[in-house]
Amino acid sequence: MTGIVAARLKELGITLPPPAKVLGNYMPAVLEGHIAIASQAPVVDGKVKYAGRVGAEISLAQSEDCARLTAINVLGALHVALDGNLDRVRRCVRLGGFIAVTPEFKDHGRVMDSASDLMVQVFGDKGRHARFSVGVMSLPAGLTMIIEGMFYID
Amino acid sequence: MTGIVAARLKELGITLPPPAKVLGNYMPAVLEGHIAIASQAPVVDGKVKYAGRVGAEISLAQSEDCARLTAINVLGALHVALDGNLDRVRRCVRLGGFIAVTPEFKDHGRVMDSASDLMVQVFGDKGRHARFSVGVMSLPAGLTMIIEGMFYID
Amino acid sequence: MTGIVAARLKELGITLPPPAKVLGNYMPAVLEGHIAIASQAPVVDGKVKYAGRVGAEISLAQSEDCARLTAINVLGALHVALDGNLDRVRRCVRLGGFIAVTPEFKDHGRVMDSASDLMVQVFGDKGRHARFSVGVMSLPAGLTMIIEGMFYID
Repeated sequence: MTGIVAARLKELGITLPPPAKVLGNYMPAVLEGHIAIASQAPVVDGKVKYAGRVGAEISLAQSEDCARLTAINVLGALHVALDGNLDRVRRCVRLGGFIAVTPEFKDHGRVMDSASDLMVQVFGDKGRHARFSVGVMSLPAGLTMIIEGMFYID
Repeated sequence: MTGIVAARLKELGITLPPPAKVLGNYMPAVLEGHIAIASQAPVVDGKVKYAGRVGAEISLAQSEDCARLTAINVLGALHVALDGNLDRVRRCVRLGGFIAVTPEFKDHGRVMDSASDLMVQVFGDKGRHARFSVGVMSLPAGLTMIIEGMFYID
Repeated sequence: MTGIVAARLKELGITLPPPAKVLGNYMPAVLEGHIAIASQAPVVDGKVKYAGRVGAEISLAQSEDCARLTAINVLGALHVALDGNLDRVRRCVRLGGFIAVTPEFKDHGRVMDSASDLMVQVFGDKGRHARFSVGVMSLPAGLTMIIEGMFYID
């Protein structure tokens, strides 16, 4: 891995994860034409790191670490789809965050800020994206979060 | 703001909102290549107008006004991303609606119809889009709705 | 309907449904530029086949049939948007699954595998996609599932 984004990741102390194992007929990330899409979860070494709802089993502070980890996994998947060259990212177009929460939870935005901040730390102005954050009933394996990123690739 | 769509908005009595303040490292709308994406909420002058669940705190009639307002905010954000020229919209490709609802609620389609109708009122046949409407557990700040629009831009 | 994908569908014993009636100002699928998007539900002949939550009213086995049916409906809508020529699909880029579930449900992935498997059965390697699966509070008309597919079209 070389390039401007790789150097920036090193500065930030971020090591991208190896390609995640996928258990079904889908992919960690797909690039076709200029569009790349990656959906990822808060998983480390193939094991779920964060399960449970924010506002109950998971605290707000934990959820921020969870969102940062999930965003790093999005970059890890994207990195593989781009054959290791993240400098091809012209733009992080959009992040969509699905967060398992309690009915009363209202701080979805603060949770997702950790993911958004990461994109801007890594890509600078190219990392500024449209975004939605929604609170869902439940996620696969009891995951706390899934983030889907859409990127425009040169 | 000039052009065909601007004239149509004037006919409809719709004034697009000024650019929304965004509190984090994200944008009201992003345009890259031919794709623009905007996610918006039922907010007026930076204040939440509709909070609470449809079927409980928010009536069906209120939810229809909420969806129309949210769709107008999507156009407002898009308008800024297009430097004021909505005539560049070749197509509203897709609307995704996330609606805070009670478990028993079933009229998501009727809620979102107000947003879909607005797109067709403003863009004519170019406003006809694919669509999903889902009922979620909760949204940031207790919002009643978030709509994400995807547009193809010339 | 002719072509390689049509022959493959015949081999698999799959008949695509006729164009679904849409009740509002939206479309079963939209193609613009190279991007096609279709959102569909588990409906047969205009009638809801699967309503209710997976983990309660709907069993896991039923949910797998539901996901396969919904994915077939996505292809049916796409087929119409492509004027009957599914050979123009260069890639199934992404599937997004919204599933009505109980709070305790954890097997969203297994449900969506039926949809993912169908895409690969029909398109081969072109059918391998990015994917998210989320559990939601409720869906229009009490539907068990909505799948939104994004395709890259030649």
